[in-house]
Amino acid sequence: MDSKLQAYIDELNALDFKGMYGGDFFLTWEKSDDELAAVFAVADALRHLRESNISTRIFDSGLGVSLFRDNSTRTRFSFASACNLLGLHVQDLDEGKSQIAHGETVRETANMISFMADVIGIRDDMYIGKGNKYMHEVVDAVTEGHRQGVLAQKPTLVNLQCDIDHPTQCMADMLHIIHEFGGVENLKGKKIAMTWAYSPSYGKPLSVPQGVIGLMTRFGMDVVLAHPEGYEVMSGVEEVACFNAARSGGSFTKTHSMAEAFKGADIVYPKSWAPYAAMEKRTKLYEKSDAEGIKALEKELLKQNAEHVDWCCTEELMATTKGGRALYLHCLPADISGVSCEKGEVAASVFDRYRTPLYRQASFKPYIIAAMIFLAKVKDPQATLSALAEQNTPRFFQA
Amino acid sequence: MDSKLQAYIDELNALDFKGMYGGDFFLTWEKSDDELAAVFAVADALRHLRESNISTRIFDSGLGVSLFRDNSTRTRFSFASACNLLGLHVQDLDEGKSQIAHGETVRETANMISFMADVIGIRDDMYIGKGNKYMHEVVDAVTEGHRQGVLAQKPTLVNLQCDIDHPTQCMADMLHIIHEFGGVENLKGKKIAMTWAYSPSYGKPLSVPQGVIGLMTRFGMDVVLAHPEGYEVMSGVEEVACFNAARSGGSFTKTHSMAEAFKGADIVYPKSWAPYAAMEKRTKLYEKSDAEGIKALEKELLKQNAEHVDWCCTEELMATTKGGRALYLHCLPADISGVSCEKGEVAASVFDRYRTPLYRQASFKPYIIAAMIFLAKVKDPQATLSALAEQNTPRFFQA
Amino acid sequence: MDSKLQAYIDELNALDFKGMYGGDFFLTWEKSDDELAAVFAVADALRHLRESNISTRIFDSGLGVSLFRDNSTRTRFSFASACNLLGLHVQDLDEGKSQIAHGETVRETANMISFMADVIGIRDDMYIGKGNKYMHEVVDAVTEGHRQGVLAQKPTLVNLQCDIDHPTQCMADMLHIIHEFGGVENLKGKKIAMTWAYSPSYGKPLSVPQGVIGLMTRFGMDVVLAHPEGYEVMSGVEEVACFNAARSGGSFTKTHSMAEAFKGADIVYPKSWAPYAAMEKRTKLYEKSDAEGIKALEKELLKQNAEHVDWCCTEELMATTKGGRALYLHCLPADISGVSCEKGEVAASVFDRYRTPLYRQASFKPYIIAAMIFLAKVKDPQATLSALAEQNTPRFFQA
Repeated sequence: MDSKLQAYIDELNALDFKGMYGGDFFLTWEKSDDELAAVFAVADALRHLRESNISTRIFDSGLGVSLFRDNSTRTRFSFASACNLLGLHVQDLDEGKSQIAHGETVRETANMISFMADVIGIRDDMYIGKGNKYMHEVVDAVTEGHRQGVLAQKPTLVNLQCDIDHPTQCMADMLHIIHEFGGVENLKGKKIAMTWAYSPSYGKPLSVPQGVIGLMTRFGMDVVLAHPEGYEVMSGVEEVACFNAARSGGSFTKTHSMAEAFKGADIVYPKSWAPYAAMEKRTKLYEKSDAEGIKALEKELLKQNAEHVDWCCTEELMATTKGGRALYLHCLPADISGVSCEKGEVAASVFDRYRTPLYRQASFKPYIIAAMIFLAKVKDPQATLSALAEQNTPRFFQA
Repeated sequence: MDSKLQAYIDELNALDFKGMYGGDFFLTWEKSDDELAAVFAVADALRHLRESNISTRIFDSGLGVSLFRDNSTRTRFSFASACNLLGLHVQDLDEGKSQIAHGETVRETANMISFMADVIGIRDDMYIGKGNKYMHEVVDAVTEGHRQGVLAQKPTLVNLQCDIDHPTQCMADMLHIIHEFGGVENLKGKKIAMTWAYSPSYGKPLSVPQGVIGLMTRFGMDVVLAHPEGYEVMSGVEEVACFNAARSGGSFTKTHSMAEAFKGADIVYPKSWAPYAAMEKRTKLYEKSDAEGIKALEKELLKQNAEHVDWCCTEELMATTKGGRALYLHCLPADISGVSCEKGEVAASVFDRYRTPLYRQASFKPYIIAAMIFLAKVKDPQATLSALAEQNTPRFFQA
Repeated sequence: MDSKLQAYIDELNALDFKGMYGGDFFLTWEKSDDELAAVFAVADALRHLRESNISTRIFDSGLGVSLFRDNSTRTRFSFASACNLLGLHVQDLDEGKSQIAHGETVRETANMISFMADVIGIRDDMYIGKGNKYMHEVVDAVTEGHRQGVLAQKPTLVNLQCDIDHPTQCMADMLHIIHEFGGVENLKGKKIAMTWAYSPSYGKPLSVPQGVIGLMTRFGMDVVLAHPEGYEVMSGVEEVACFNAARSGGSFTKTHSMAEAFKGADIVYPKSWAPYAAMEKRTKLYEKSDAEGIKALEKELLKQNAEHVDWCCTEELMATTKGGRALYLHCLPADISGVSCEKGEVAASVFDRYRTPLYRQASFKPYIIAAMIFLAKVKDPQATLSALAEQNTPRFFQA
């Protein structure tokens, strides 16, 4: 076996992640440090195998069901890519939002789509208090279906973005950081600024900033959350961040100044989001189908946003980061000033300089998703990775 | 070979189903008893292999084309699952209803989508006199295309629900019954009540009650069809049911009393449908694009339904069945009183008690569809099932 | 190895097509004669293998991304079939037209969808000066992404129809002609009439007539382009046709008489298209979102079409062709007089007589697309075709 794969396997041998077998992936902070490290190692190993033209298909047949309750191109393709990498066919569940109700219907639909399903990927991020809950309802239903013998296998749930966390995005972001800094051991004391940025659009989900502070506080980094007053995120996730920081020997601080957050930062993640309170309000308005109220709220939020049009990742701000060269992150697509909108989250010249690293950041997501599936399905990941390498089935065959 | 698979193969060895090779599946009553028994045996065998983690992929590549002229989640996933089980990729043909005209265009489209197609699954149940006819046009077109050398293979048609029958549903229902009663030999003299039930929705297809009486009269059971006056099904299918019952030593009777149907029944299948005469009328209104007429008809039908709101599968009625424990069937989704609607087809407590058996009932459909395809494609099913078991390619590989 | 496959390999051995490796397919006239001959030979070889039940899957996993900016059933299925033949799963990119902007966004989206993509097939034919340009932007983006290490592989672009050419259609048409005439060596001096025909619909793309005159002038044939005054195609493509004809020893002439074009023709291709000038005008109106202007233009064009309702491929015209039996071509669907419209491109009896050859013409397209992919991906196509034949993996397995 090649030494690179051996290194990943050695890494896995030193970790305890047996709790992932047969499980699901909801929130990063429900996983142990070892479990997250296992996801990173398997993601790197799968990528290494694929880039060595070695097939990583562990499924000869089987379905990966995708359920998107919000439009998505990037996440849809990431999920499809991950499924394809492992040998699963994607089958989209395209019920209208209204048709997928809660309770009885979730239980039924979850079983009806799962007779051949090994994985279910769900994106449901629009309504506070709903998305994560819905995912749990689905998992409860298929767990019961499997227990009752209705389903031959329990499909694994991968949270492709909920109202609380965006684990596949943040884990991909984190793996990118680990690679850029040459290893997780180099992150201690590094400063990362997760900051709000102005966008002319309304109602962007909170799952990215929440996911970032919930995850990145676990590696001994100094995590700063910056936003204008009124743009608070879920307090429960802030508590997670505080707890993580204390445990990891890093820190978690908050500020209302973008400049303060950027100052001396090694990594910056400027991105727009809607205030948590407003998202809660919106959820209630949708529940009441109050179209007038929704329209009024949108107007109010856009006006509120417009007061903070100066929250932009400019060249001036970037110059204040560590060596003027902080790693710039974004989950994409970004609102780029003068390109996709008049004034946005980031200056065109900054975005342009970081384009390749940004695309590389995104490139980890399919492998992170595949690793989450792999660890939930495979009893002995190390042995199975070895076996795949030994089988050496070409991903692409030519004579 | 394991003894369970051997038993299925022995069963097949005793049957004459050579007429299925190269064929299609339109209506159950166009198939011999042996042919239906072969579908059940192959479905069970494929399920057994998959649940033993043995790949049943007979196709290394190839397309399964799905064409739904009515919305569908369950049937769509069943078809996708069946195709996946055999190694086919599903390609949806999503032309608007209006674009798929009859005549010239059917012939052309059928060939254009079939260059790599091994299977075509069609659901077309909305218009009386149309759906089954359309399926035949498609089969005629691809048969001619194959004869002329345009198509390297003739795709197999699977009727995923037409205006006359719903063979994949009813065959799955039947296989469920066979399993629940411990074998087809235990069904003689059992009473099954196919009864109309109240639903607040309009225009549900007739294919399930018709399919049930057309199929379940073949096993020596006492089949009772119950509905309020005015909710007649196609008379031609009733004739089929009479003929079948006489031949099988069972009976086929009709009643306008739900209570009478339920009394002492071993199996009950309470489900709403629209009157045949109304469906015919609606078809003509659609042909004339008479929006006013359609609206008026809908109103009239809902009013007619509302007169029979007492046709509900209650605990009281269930208590009158054999030992108070009849097997409750439904093709799902059901209209559940107090859950999905105020008053519906079934009481919540009844539905709740039968949830697991209901999901199990549905779980047979992918295997029934796969078996129909298998028998149409494979010249020697017994030898091929044996060969798959001997190859023992894991469906899911892990070391 | 069987002698038929050996003949295709011998043919390839005599050709220089090494320039196709790693490349893309935009326009036929950007390819050398040898390169086009290689596409034909590989298409025939892949078809021969599949029809001999030999798997041609060179991909164990991988995605083929389809991006259609215009509705399509035929091309969508051709692309899906080609991908399936080689082992790729199709993933559709269904952004609304408005969402896929140019510039920054193209670059980003192209990379985001390509992490597992081996092929991208694009249809973008509606706007003059846009479609081909867009395809180049996509290729530039993924080439750069691959160079920067973001993408493990550079996906191959296949032009599934642009504003200039329709190479997969015209190459399929040409392979059909080659087969019908018993070899490319028999085409010298044959007369082919690419003529406009009346259709009651508006704004049909120019890519077929342009693709035909740009390709078919390369085989020593006498190519006649016929259309009413005002229905000119792109002058740049006419120049290509002139140049090709001179080089190949054939001819390229133009006429405003359908009768003249048909007279003594060996092959006729009567088909409607919109005037180039009108398409340019329409593109500008769309840019300005000038709904009124678009409506006015449509009205004007339909009126202009109606002046040429006599441009129909009638029995009388067919009788004037070589032996009264010219090969009739159409890319389908055709506007058939008295069938799909009152007056259209072709008489019903003519169309009816040529139905089987027309379907056969279409049957080459999946293989042409697969050959384009194969030649861009495989370094030694001859050795790989041999290896596939030797492996002899059944496309469809049965014992």
